[in-house]
Amino acid sequence: MSRTVITPEDGVVYEFTPDLEPIETVESGASLTVETVDSLEGAVQSEDDLLATVPEEVNAATGPIGVEGAEPGAVLAVEVEEIRLTEATGRVITIEGFGLLDGHEGIDAPRTEMTPVDGEAIRFRDLEVPVSPVIGTIGVAPAEDAYTTLVPHDHGGNLDTTDITAGNTVYFPVFQDGAMLAMGDCKAAMADGEMCGTGSEIATEIDLSLELLEEPAIDLERPLIETADAWKTVASAETLEEACELANRDAIGLLAAEHDFDTTQAYLFSSLVGGLEISQVVDPLVTVRNAVPKAYLSSPL
Amino acid sequence: MSRTVITPEDGVVYEFTPDLEPIETVESGASLTVETVDSLEGAVQSEDDLLATVPEEVNAATGPIGVEGAEPGAVLAVEVEEIRLTEATGRVITIEGFGLLDGHEGIDAPRTEMTPVDGEAIRFRDLEVPVSPVIGTIGVAPAEDAYTTLVPHDHGGNLDTTDITAGNTVYFPVFQDGAMLAMGDCKAAMADGEMCGTGSEIATEIDLSLELLEEPAIDLERPLIETADAWKTVASAETLEEACELANRDAIGLLAAEHDFDTTQAYLFSSLVGGLEISQVVDPLVTVRNAVPKAYLSSPL
Repeated sequence: MSRTVITPEDGVVYEFTPDLEPIETVESGASLTVETVDSLEGAVQSEDDLLATVPEEVNAATGPIGVEGAEPGAVLAVEVEEIRLTEATGRVITIEGFGLLDGHEGIDAPRTEMTPVDGEAIRFRDLEVPVSPVIGTIGVAPAEDAYTTLVPHDHGGNLDTTDITAGNTVYFPVFQDGAMLAMGDCKAAMADGEMCGTGSEIATEIDLSLELLEEPAIDLERPLIETADAWKTVASAETLEEACELANRDAIGLLAAEHDFDTTQAYLFSSLVGGLEISQVVDPLVTVRNAVPKAYLSSPL
Repeated sequence: MSRTVITPEDGVVYEFTPDLEPIETVESGASLTVETVDSLEGAVQSEDDLLATVPEEVNAATGPIGVEGAEPGAVLAVEVEEIRLTEATGRVITIEGFGLLDGHEGIDAPRTEMTPVDGEAIRFRDLEVPVSPVIGTIGVAPAEDAYTTLVPHDHGGNLDTTDITAGNTVYFPVFQDGAMLAMGDCKAAMADGEMCGTGSEIATEIDLSLELLEEPAIDLERPLIETADAWKTVASAETLEEACELANRDAIGLLAAEHDFDTTQAYLFSSLVGGLEISQVVDPLVTVRNAVPKAYLSSPL
């Protein structure tokens, strides 16, 4: 099957709303290539390009892509096959009022460092960092409220999660007819936490395939990621503590369903294997995941 | 050199105080075997043993072990060589008023599940979990305040950090003459987060070696862990957000010192590699670490 190519010229969104209209509609099973611009849309091309404030429109998400037959209650599986960098340099920046250490002594904002691509690595001054691309913003039309592409929530959005990378599959609840997938805000590399507020922001093209699960075995409320060796629940909230609670509750739900554990048994077991991981601590809501090794969860969906 | 064996009968502490007195004093370079009781000191031997409240004395830490010549400003390196389980079963429990999901619907407290040791695994009901021991509580005499062994802080204490395991080295700031190392509260296995409030709590014997760094290259304020492939700063605070800030600031300090980066450059770089990890979210202070791959930090001390 040939790949459908979807580009930012076809359409981008800066807000995930319940009433998104598709720029393209595909069938379950479709293979796509989605092109994305960098999160700052070319505004930062050298160390002299400094951003005084977070742009009003940021994290342009290419889409929305409708999926035929997708209805609320279904799950959309997005298998990320490959992420290719499509510009010669990324950039990592501080912006005043944004980032984990904003306002701390010695932390200057705005500041920009360019991170040129050099083969399989990017360079940060004299250091090389292996290219390990991440899709920062990816989601579907939410249930009720609207969320700008700076915000992560149950629909996905600005999850800034290193596990959203090639080889892994991200499962989203379908809240609206057609699902309405959109993505952007990729990084050539990013630390868990995204402490300064960005990774190495860069344009990409993403090969992915979509599959609609019309009758999932569980009532998925939030994104779920399948890696080579784990299932990871993903939750965003006002505080890391609240996000940890949501991610752990979701993981417990999966464990209880598979093993015929009661909720407390699943909670006790969750305290022995895998565990809580930090996605990002800088967006308007923060994001945490709870990893459960595949040895203990076969196929929860 | 023969190993000095130190047992709970020699002495345990339930509080890390500035004025600890050693039960044994060893030289830098000493190899020790330290025996530890389980954190609940045998109170839970079956699923019928339920704990209504957190015991007033918990996490008995074998020690304190004095180190000759250790003075404030030095660093004590504790290389964990091997952790052997010394009882036939561990236990994982809930206690009312304790744990990430305490009070949530469906979460019963008190509850106990026994986790018998079966070769290289423990069993949780029908499931097997590979034995992967963790030292839950390990620390030195603090600078000024006293901390019970339920609390983690800059002196170490109840860090509940999965990286404090065989093969890794933990570096502690020396705040008092003799350092006064003590440890206990081991687990046969534990998830990052320790969500229900315990791992598989179990008695152990720990082989370790001590080395005193009398003139460290940095002013170490909090514990630092060296794993096979990363240096990890460790920080405890009231909230996960605060702990993330401390751990990231410490990581930035190490990066800035090694690479002649200014603080902001180190911050930007920290947002590209390794990243923030959760140790535990259940103790009176919570604990986070910031991993920096060794490719970018040779030997910060």
